[in-house]
Amino acid sequence: MFPLSWEMIMKKYTNIYDISNIPEIIQEAIHLKKNPFAHENLGKHKTLVMLFFNASLRTRLSTEKAAKNLGMQVMILNVNDTWNLEFEDGTVMNFNTTEHVKEAAQVISQYADIIAIRAFPSLTNKEKDASEWILNRFTKHATVPIINMESATMHPLQALADAITIEELKTIKKPKVVLTWAPHPKALPQAVANSFVEMMENIDVDFCITHPKGYELNPEITLETQINYNQAEALKDADFVYAKNWSSYSNYGEILSQDANWMLTQEKIKTAKFMHCLPVRRNVVVEDAVLDSNNSIVIQQANNRTYAAQIVLKKILENL
Amino acid sequence: MFPLSWEMIMKKYTNIYDISNIPEIIQEAIHLKKNPFAHENLGKHKTLVMLFFNASLRTRLSTEKAAKNLGMQVMILNVNDTWNLEFEDGTVMNFNTTEHVKEAAQVISQYADIIAIRAFPSLTNKEKDASEWILNRFTKHATVPIINMESATMHPLQALADAITIEELKTIKKPKVVLTWAPHPKALPQAVANSFVEMMENIDVDFCITHPKGYELNPEITLETQINYNQAEALKDADFVYAKNWSSYSNYGEILSQDANWMLTQEKIKTAKFMHCLPVRRNVVVEDAVLDSNNSIVIQQANNRTYAAQIVLKKILENL
Amino acid sequence: MFPLSWEMIMKKYTNIYDISNIPEIIQEAIHLKKNPFAHENLGKHKTLVMLFFNASLRTRLSTEKAAKNLGMQVMILNVNDTWNLEFEDGTVMNFNTTEHVKEAAQVISQYADIIAIRAFPSLTNKEKDASEWILNRFTKHATVPIINMESATMHPLQALADAITIEELKTIKKPKVVLTWAPHPKALPQAVANSFVEMMENIDVDFCITHPKGYELNPEITLETQINYNQAEALKDADFVYAKNWSSYSNYGEILSQDANWMLTQEKIKTAKFMHCLPVRRNVVVEDAVLDSNNSIVIQQANNRTYAAQIVLKKILENL
Repeated sequence: MFPLSWEMIMKKYTNIYDISNIPEIIQEAIHLKKNPFAHENLGKHKTLVMLFFNASLRTRLSTEKAAKNLGMQVMILNVNDTWNLEFEDGTVMNFNTTEHVKEAAQVISQYADIIAIRAFPSLTNKEKDASEWILNRFTKHATVPIINMESATMHPLQALADAITIEELKTIKKPKVVLTWAPHPKALPQAVANSFVEMMENIDVDFCITHPKGYELNPEITLETQINYNQAEALKDADFVYAKNWSSYSNYGEILSQDANWMLTQEKIKTAKFMHCLPVRRNVVVEDAVLDSNNSIVIQQANNRTYAAQIVLKKILENL
Repeated sequence: MFPLSWEMIMKKYTNIYDISNIPEIIQEAIHLKKNPFAHENLGKHKTLVMLFFNASLRTRLSTEKAAKNLGMQVMILNVNDTWNLEFEDGTVMNFNTTEHVKEAAQVISQYADIIAIRAFPSLTNKEKDASEWILNRFTKHATVPIINMESATMHPLQALADAITIEELKTIKKPKVVLTWAPHPKALPQAVANSFVEMMENIDVDFCITHPKGYELNPEITLETQINYNQAEALKDADFVYAKNWSSYSNYGEILSQDANWMLTQEKIKTAKFMHCLPVRRNVVVEDAVLDSNNSIVIQQANNRTYAAQIVLKKILENL
Repeated sequence: MFPLSWEMIMKKYTNIYDISNIPEIIQEAIHLKKNPFAHENLGKHKTLVMLFFNASLRTRLSTEKAAKNLGMQVMILNVNDTWNLEFEDGTVMNFNTTEHVKEAAQVISQYADIIAIRAFPSLTNKEKDASEWILNRFTKHATVPIINMESATMHPLQALADAITIEELKTIKKPKVVLTWAPHPKALPQAVANSFVEMMENIDVDFCITHPKGYELNPEITLETQINYNQAEALKDADFVYAKNWSSYSNYGEILSQDANWMLTQEKIKTAKFMHCLPVRRNVVVEDAVLDSNNSIVIQQANNRTYAAQIVLKKILENL
């Protein structure tokens, strides 16, 4: 039996700082993966309600599976099919919105023991996105723990899965990990990159970011992170290369470049393990040769989404 | 152990008159709420199929949860994503409709032990809505019990939850309960109001309705109910105030008034408990001050949706 | 205890030839139907992921029920709500498609022990449909068994349910079974007819097809099947009449006829059992009198969808 980290309490998981001891939780997740049904009574008579303001494949399936591995009941609601929620206070609701988040969050809290929420950013209103208006309003009014399944600015379940994957596959104590921007035809959120940066700054890796000028992430997040505008230099001797597109933070939500020179190639990657959160656009973000090589670990990453979710659910359940 | 109401048999729940002993079922629901998993083997190997012709939040989650509390399997179908059902007999189906309710109801009856249906009114065809064409055609052709999750004219699960809530929170033996119409920008069904009126006429309360002229509900339903067109007078000394909008029954489906003077306020409500089935438009139906006060019991009402559904499922399961 | 067909191994179920011994599996399904929960521990800790590229009623509910009868967890994904999958290799994915089937199939394989897929034909590109591009690309890249819930050209779960139904209801050793084309206002796939033909050629029945000229199915499938262009002659002395519309295979995907003379009537059917996979358009494909008579066995057919799915899942689970 793995030593119970009885001292670790999780009351919610909205960003990676809700984990008090990241290396320990990574080890426990790896342990859990070997015997995913070991705690199948922990979630008995407990219900996870998953609210999707945005579509989902991996997050939906892996989180549902994780909850069921723990014996939980799962109820899923695609919010936009059902609702136009009001998030502002004091509004006279005689136009489009039909229910206020105050009622919604309190009501769902009575049907759920834990609520998981996916709510992407607008990418048009920087301040509103930064305020995490959907996630935070739910967190404020819900009376049960909240799990972030990717919010406007954070994707902490993905970052935890990424850290688990690096821990499993690293061959040296302190591997070099590079997060590189890559081109994409659509404006994408910064959430995955933000949470990955935060996670890397909190585990024992040699970490840097590379991206074209203008693609700097929120400087509060990259405060202690080395940024290199030269991709080739950054990738040198990397053990893990994480590719990800994001839209500009300074010119908020804009696509400043689709420069195909930033696409990841086998030649650039060399023997480094290749990471991506998926879905990935082949031959735009990264060439086929990389994804089809043994150095691609994107499938393992996706698999670890289950155990990232499961360890988070387990910690929260233990605290209910 | 609560005394088993062995004599109470439910074969379906399409309106409140399917309950033979309302006070007893309310007591049993309150008892069930204290130990919701006490009957978790009752639904073993039984399946609830939930059919939604219209979107749902509370009804969907609370009914699913109730069924799972009883150990049932739940399968959910959003009908309009899948089907265009034919409800008329003898039609040559070479236009829009792809399946007749005769087949649909019989087929689903083979996958389900109980079928729950939500099907709102057209609000354009009074006679068709009054005939409960969707619910009744399913009831006719299905070979398993039917539960009404809000039909064209009735919402008996809501009314049962409302009655449970009043019973739990009343401080005098026979409280005064007032149903008041409230303004709303959209034309809404009369179903919630209808079932609430029927329920109040069958429990021990002092009940009246208040609404502007022209908003009289179906007179067959309000036959024994006092109607007061003066809201202030009606609300006087109320213990429970239930606010709800509905469209006109006489001028069928029309909005005759959006008079903001009918909005519920703290000043009007005074110390009465405030009830609403939710979703509620804040500052249109009722002002923030009411919903944010301790006298609002709308969240408890929503919680009791689970136990209303659960007692109904339990009674039907016991009779299978 | 039914003698275990220990020698029968199923690694997938994409067409009926994945069953090595059809008569035996039919018998075992009939046996299973009598005690559907007898193997409820077989699927413990196993997950079925159901992917729908197209809407579904019977297939969705019966397959989900079958999996749950075996104790499996079920996760359902309506693909088009979530994804635009890329199926071609080597594409530069900078337009509409967001994820390649290579990743999707591998990722889902990690969340699922079995994947079931529904993916209809285009009916515009004969070659592409014939290649079963969606089903086969998933089968190629998935690392878990695949079940076909109706693909471009085959519907083997339906055919198995049909064979079970005939076996249950036949009154002579070798009944005469007739598959007859019937009119329909929309261009429909050939999948149901194809799999039914293949199934009938592999069980002990006297089988023929009748349809207007131009509606010949893929000749590779009907190689050994008698085709009669005279419906009245074909139907003579039939024990089972299976009606089904399909669009032209030679003039691929076209409607060549909506000739109402091909509609099935009580007069034509006489005492034969009437079969259809449903949904069926009344008074277009078949008149009311047939469907409302005791000779219609379409409801039993739909019921047997559960046991067809369950025996397939059971065989695959036993082999995991």
